[in-house]
Amino acid sequence: MTRIYLIACGGTIEKVYSEQTGAVQNLASKIDRYFRLLRLPDTQIETLPLMNKDSLEMTDADRTRVLEAVRAKLAQPAPIVITHGTDTMVETGLVLQRNLPNLTVPIVMTGAMTPLGFEASDGLQNLTESLLAARILPPGVWLVMHNQVFPIDRVRKDRDLARFVAL
Amino acid sequence: MTRIYLIACGGTIEKVYSEQTGAVQNLASKIDRYFRLLRLPDTQIETLPLMNKDSLEMTDADRTRVLEAVRAKLAQPAPIVITHGTDTMVETGLVLQRNLPNLTVPIVMTGAMTPLGFEASDGLQNLTESLLAARILPPGVWLVMHNQVFPIDRVRKDRDLARFVAL
Amino acid sequence: MTRIYLIACGGTIEKVYSEQTGAVQNLASKIDRYFRLLRLPDTQIETLPLMNKDSLEMTDADRTRVLEAVRAKLAQPAPIVITHGTDTMVETGLVLQRNLPNLTVPIVMTGAMTPLGFEASDGLQNLTESLLAARILPPGVWLVMHNQVFPIDRVRKDRDLARFVAL
Amino acid sequence: MTRIYLIACGGTIEKVYSEQTGAVQNLASKIDRYFRLLRLPDTQIETLPLMNKDSLEMTDADRTRVLEAVRAKLAQPAPIVITHGTDTMVETGLVLQRNLPNLTVPIVMTGAMTPLGFEASDGLQNLTESLLAARILPPGVWLVMHNQVFPIDRVRKDRDLARFVAL
Repeated sequence: MTRIYLIACGGTIEKVYSEQTGAVQNLASKIDRYFRLLRLPDTQIETLPLMNKDSLEMTDADRTRVLEAVRAKLAQPAPIVITHGTDTMVETGLVLQRNLPNLTVPIVMTGAMTPLGFEASDGLQNLTESLLAARILPPGVWLVMHNQVFPIDRVRKDRDLARFVAL
Repeated sequence: MTRIYLIACGGTIEKVYSEQTGAVQNLASKIDRYFRLLRLPDTQIETLPLMNKDSLEMTDADRTRVLEAVRAKLAQPAPIVITHGTDTMVETGLVLQRNLPNLTVPIVMTGAMTPLGFEASDGLQNLTESLLAARILPPGVWLVMHNQVFPIDRVRKDRDLARFVAL
Repeated sequence: MTRIYLIACGGTIEKVYSEQTGAVQNLASKIDRYFRLLRLPDTQIETLPLMNKDSLEMTDADRTRVLEAVRAKLAQPAPIVITHGTDTMVETGLVLQRNLPNLTVPIVMTGAMTPLGFEASDGLQNLTESLLAARILPPGVWLVMHNQVFPIDRVRKDRDLARFVAL
Repeated sequence: MTRIYLIACGGTIEKVYSEQTGAVQNLASKIDRYFRLLRLPDTQIETLPLMNKDSLEMTDADRTRVLEAVRAKLAQPAPIVITHGTDTMVETGLVLQRNLPNLTVPIVMTGAMTPLGFEASDGLQNLTESLLAARILPPGVWLVMHNQVFPIDRVRKDRDLARFVAL
């Protein structure tokens, strides 16, 4: 059984539609419901719902909390997947890269352009890819989405295309 | 082959998620895409995308346009389904009822609490029910959702419960 | 709250794919799982999983069991939906019609051409339609599928077209 | 744009339900329909529907055809994903491994326990994983399913558990 840590930070991937307000919002972590759609007979996912924020609203303090959560997990090293809003995913990833120089496991950052469970969502695809990437990528901080794999310091979001591209 | 007219006025049932703005909005009619998920070997649906509005933004002039569209269809009578935002669906339905005293076909108003294609959406259920109701209800103006059938003058929306209840 | 009885007899609608045999079979009733995908705030469904058979294998004794189950429900009358294999659905329906001359509620027979949950399945559509039909049809024995409503003595299956047609 | 070759050989992943026979069978390749559910902005998939067989019916001649198809693709090297029935997937993979000693790209074999588009199918998960694996695994012949990655000579199917396990 292989352990993978999943640190959920919110972002579009976890947004839900509110029937009362008609808005999509980060209300409660829903990622575990979607893992149940995957077959993972040899993978034990330990989910930590750390925060549930639109990443445009994440502060430096929030990024420090992510860093501290990762540090705590690294006491018992295993690959880490971090779900995160796409707008500042790279920024958070760079904080991890700068502060964790001697990683022995891969840290895979992912998210979605459309929330999990909405028509044409890329959420489950990105989760599936990230869990696979977590098992085979070398140590380092990576961004994985849409069948692409980027080192965190060589990628940026292209908002108009709704995807990530090489820096 | 039985003909059913479908007049699409927008509302939550047709909202889409915008990856650029992160909002759900009425942008373009998507109802035909969902009819294709149904088997309708003896039903010919003629869709008229009349407007695509959040029903809270519908004006008296908009309701008159709905009335005129219905009148035009009644020149060649066949059952009519109207998809509409839930907030003022009853108001529009009452306009139809007051102005069309001698109906020979049923007019079925429906919509959704969560957009078609979003997780836990009631949209396809309500469309399916409305098409069936259009074939068997007597003439009159009806509201059909959630396995419930109401005469339009005996129903109101309960916003907190996200459903319709008898008046 | 409106009560509807659901008597499940098996048929394609309830078939499941077996990973061990690679066949689709009637193994265990799964209809309740699919009701949970519908919003039924004013409907109380009482499910009776009576048998789980391919309808080509149903015997006269099986049809008598269906009749007795219906009779038992009619002690406390409420509309009845019967899910059943399509190949002999009409035959069972005719047994009910012949033996229950003074019905005060509708009995709606339905099923599916492709099992619930398989791509392009008509199962959830037919269930949704049947529950709506059960609320508004007059007493009698009916067959409801694919946005069509037939009196049970005026319908036959067209195997090549995979649908029902008027007799 | 990264090119990936997809050689489709049939197997459970491509089976469809036949409404006429009530059986699941390998009739026509459907894998391209499912790729359209994925976002692949930087991936160009070239699909070759080579054969559509239950892998228990594959002969030595069939395996030779797979080998020749792979050889043809290697003239212009790019990663290769092969979809295949699970029962003899390892056998075909070993033929490739024995006959292609100096690979410069990864060959990823995958399939499914339940056909694409059936409830609880693992097909889209396995496709998603295999496309990601094709981009990052080193040259060699691999089997990728259920968030697991095996060298082809160190894996066997466990039929009772409906999964692959290390040899």
